[in-house]
Order: sequence, then structure tokens, then C-alpha cells
Amino acid sequence: MKHIGFIGTGVMGKSMAGHLLEKGYHIHLYTRTRAKAEDLLEKGAEWHETPAALAGRCDAVITMVGYPKDVEEVYFGEEGILSNAREGTLLIDMTTSRPDLAVKIAAEAEKRKLFALDAPVSGGDIGAKNAALAIMSGGSKKAFTLAEPLFKIMGENIQLLGDAGAGQFTKMANQIAIASTMMGVSESLAYAKAAGLDTAQVINTIETGAAGSFSLSKLGRRMLEEDFEPGFYVKHFIKDMRIAIESAKEMNLNLPGLALAESLYTRMSEAGYEDAGTQVLIKYYFQK
Amino acid sequence: MKHIGFIGTGVMGKSMAGHLLEKGYHIHLYTRTRAKAEDLLEKGAEWHETPAALAGRCDAVITMVGYPKDVEEVYFGEEGILSNAREGTLLIDMTTSRPDLAVKIAAEAEKRKLFALDAPVSGGDIGAKNAALAIMSGGSKKAFTLAEPLFKIMGENIQLLGDAGAGQFTKMANQIAIASTMMGVSESLAYAKAAGLDTAQVINTIETGAAGSFSLSKLGRRMLEEDFEPGFYVKHFIKDMRIAIESAKEMNLNLPGLALAESLYTRMSEAGYEDAGTQVLIKYYFQK
Repeated sequence: MKHIGFIGTGVMGKSMAGHLLEKGYHIHLYTRTRAKAEDLLEKGAEWHETPAALAGRCDAVITMVGYPKDVEEVYFGEEGILSNAREGTLLIDMTTSRPDLAVKIAAEAEKRKLFALDAPVSGGDIGAKNAALAIMSGGSKKAFTLAEPLFKIMGENIQLLGDAGAGQFTKMANQIAIASTMMGVSESLAYAKAAGLDTAQVINTIETGAAGSFSLSKLGRRMLEEDFEPGFYVKHFIKDMRIAIESAKEMNLNLPGLALAESLYTRMSEAGYEDAGTQVLIKYYFQK
Repeated sequence: MKHIGFIGTGVMGKSMAGHLLEKGYHIHLYTRTRAKAEDLLEKGAEWHETPAALAGRCDAVITMVGYPKDVEEVYFGEEGILSNAREGTLLIDMTTSRPDLAVKIAAEAEKRKLFALDAPVSGGDIGAKNAALAIMSGGSKKAFTLAEPLFKIMGENIQLLGDAGAGQFTKMANQIAIASTMMGVSESLAYAKAAGLDTAQVINTIETGAAGSFSLSKLGRRMLEEDFEPGFYVKHFIKDMRIAIESAKEMNLNLPGLALAESLYTRMSEAGYEDAGTQVLIKYYFQK
């Protein structure tokens, strides 16, 4: 496996493809906005005008695009991957996307004698940069074994969680836990602030006990510093929560905490914070 | 300071008073149900028939009772502490109770030349047993300095967070963070289970990243093992959440996540789980 296609070179994809390039793989690129690929092209990656052109040249194709509709287009579109990849090609969708779409891609891949994995990640831009991503994958053992050498270049905590869709299901479980936790952290600090407490001391006091969380220790501190730079964008979190809500509905599962968190973040997005980091939720509680 | 009164020897109070007794303090006891004090009485603690009788004999009085109404009665009742303590006595309420009640006790104590602290704890029965509690206190520096030697025998993370009420405010901030986080963990694992994933592997995969929390790692695992023994009782958590909701209302602060968590836990309590541990919330999502 030498020729690796990478479709989608946004903030994360760019770092991930860069790591593969550094390890000596021949990287083939396609992304909607060519300017976003320039850095990698200068370092020796090869540009293609369509996903189809790229797919025909690669042993493995990794996709890291924005929304499920982008995944759908890049796999199933006229100039898409599935109808243009050579037999035996490994397809890995690392976008956070719909579990049912991952199942659909895998089914179509099997028909065409391709290998497919869904493998969304967590760890954000910093995890991508430091090759420290958690990679949650779903698909066959064979596909996972083929992908593992690539995953090890991009991530640290690499797991196969089941058949096609299992990676996306796990990522959704991850986002569902974060959604209400962020609400709890925001409400806790909004209350502490309104009570006139030294909020930094409050975090120091409660983070080591039962109230402790990544969200409190990392994002809670950014809330207090009013540092709303995106580690993870509000708009992307809303996308993920909506996929999770839809997916839960299909299981007849009612998740009121998730629904509430999605509604609060949607309010924040409508108030102009869609490009802020998720810690901006604290502002919800001080709106007039 | 030699004579220490301890009012309320429930699961936690019993361990806390026991540590003071072991360090050589003369412990005076009062508790509603005398049977709960027998162990300590056998070890040399002295029994009193009323809070008043106890208060008149002690240099410091610690209270660790159930509900704010119990705190009110034991401090302000006819046979209460405030009208019966000797000048200069240190009063420490370690019950999780209303911030405004802590302020009221402190004001009355000042009038009577007594020292008062509110000092609720976190760490549960195990923290109390291992003398590893976090102690969040509010009151004067003088009162805190007097209390510190006692706190160091019962806890580890000992903080003065401000004037009277600041301990209770901080404890509420702690419970508010936990409330929505527990909802997030329950919903995440309910979803993972409904999706047919190996839920233990899901925890292993997501706990090291942005979804990580004490609730996920500790209580999430108990959810999966269907171990609903109380580390912290549903009924006590509901009490705390209701105090927090009332307190937030007084600040004109709307906390929808907290309100939702309180309503879910109330449903669980009504379904007969008031004496289960808070991790029983996972069952909410599988109710018919």
C-alpha cells in the first residue's frame, strides 16, 4: 500500500494527510477548495480534479469532509469514489457522519469488492496535529487490519468497535456524553459567577472530585478566561448532535439531555456564535 | 479546643466523628436515632439528650444532618445550638444545605459572639471513611483558622471560598456540574447499548478524551454492571438539586439542564429508586 488518497483537507485533514506524507506515502489530494491543499501540494502531494480521478489511482482512500451530504456525494456521486475505485481498494471515512450512511457505503463497497471502514476521530485540531487522535472504527477485521498502519501514523487510541457503523455509533456516544456535560459545566460556572465566588478557585476545588471532567478542567477554564477560540466549532457540534438525535430516534430512544443541549447550542449559533468554540455556551446563561 | 460536639451520625457523620475521636478529642454526640451513635459511644464518646445540652459543653460543634429543615431546627430550635452555645464556640455546618440559611446562621452567631462556618463536603461515604473529603467552606478567616485542624483530620482538599454561604454555593456549583454530566453519561451509554455496541469497550475508548469524566469512568462502569448500590443516594441528590434550583432562581439564573436532570431523577424516585445510587439514572432510558 503506497498510494493514499485524501479527500478533505480542512484543519484536521491537513494535519492527518501531512503525517502520512512525512512517512513516505504517495499522497493524492482532492478537496473542494484547492487553496486548502496548497501546503501539502508544495510538499509533494499530487492533485486530482475529481474524487473519481483520485480513486482510480489509489490503494486506499481516506475521506474527511464536512457533513453527511458531502460524504454521500463523494462516495455515491457521479464523480464519486465507489464507482471509480479499483477492486481491493480500502475506503476509510473519517468524517463524523450518519451510522446508517456508513452501513450503506460498506454494503456498496462489498458488492464492488472494495474494503470499507467508518473511522471518525476525537481529539480535535490539536490531536490531529500531534498524531494523538482517538480513532473509532467500524467494519470488517480485514479492512481494519489493512487500515491499522495508517491509523497508527495519525492516532494513538485505535479501536475496532464492531461492524460497519460501529465507529460512527461510538462517536455519537462520545458526543452525547459531551453535550450534557458541557451544559453541566456551563451551568455550574454561571451559577458560581452569579454567586460572586472566585470561579477559578471553584474549578480547583471541584475538578478533583465527582464533578471532575475534561470539559470542566479544559473548557471550563477557557470559559473563565473568555477565550472562545474554537478547539471544536459550535456549528460542527450542532451537526453531530443532530445526527445523534436522528440516530437515537431510529432506535426509539428518547434523549432529553441531548435534545436540550442541541437547542441551547442552536440558540447560540443563531446569536452569531457558530464559528466559536463549544465553550461559548457559558454565554447562553448571561444573555439578556 | 478539646470538646467537640457532633450532631448527626449518619453514614458519613459517623466516620467523620470517628476520626476526631481517634485523634484524642473528647467527642460529644447527639443524633435523632441514638442507635446510630452506639459504635462511637462504645469507643468513648459522650451522649447528650438535646443539641442544647451538647452545645453548652463544647468548644466546637459540628453538624451533619439531613435536610435544611433539620439544620434550621438544630441551630434555631428551642433546644438548639445558637441560644445554648457558650461565647466563643465554633459552629460548623457540614450538611449540604441552603446558602441563605448559612448566611442566617452566621449573622445570628456573630450577634452572640460565636464563630460560624458552612463547610459542606464532597467525596461521599468512601471519602468520609478514608478521611479524604473535599471540604468547601464559607465564613471568616478567623473561624476557618480555628476549624482547620479539625478539617485536616477529616479531609484532604480543604478550601475557604469566601464569606458565609460560599461553602454552600460551591457545593451547589459542584452538584450542578454533576447533574447534567450524569445525564450525559446515562444517555451516552443508553445509546451505545441500544446500538448494540460493546459498552465496556466504548467507555475504554471515549473516557480518555473530551468525553471523559469522573461520572463516566466511575459511575458509567457501575451502570454497565447494573450495580446500583448507593455511593450517593438519589433522594439526597434530588434534595441538593432542589436547593440549587431555588438558589439559582433567587439570582434570576435559569439553568435548564439542572431543571431537566432534577425532573428525571424525580421520575426515578417516584418509580421506587430513591434509595439507589445516582447511577440508576441509566434505567430511565429503558423504561417502558
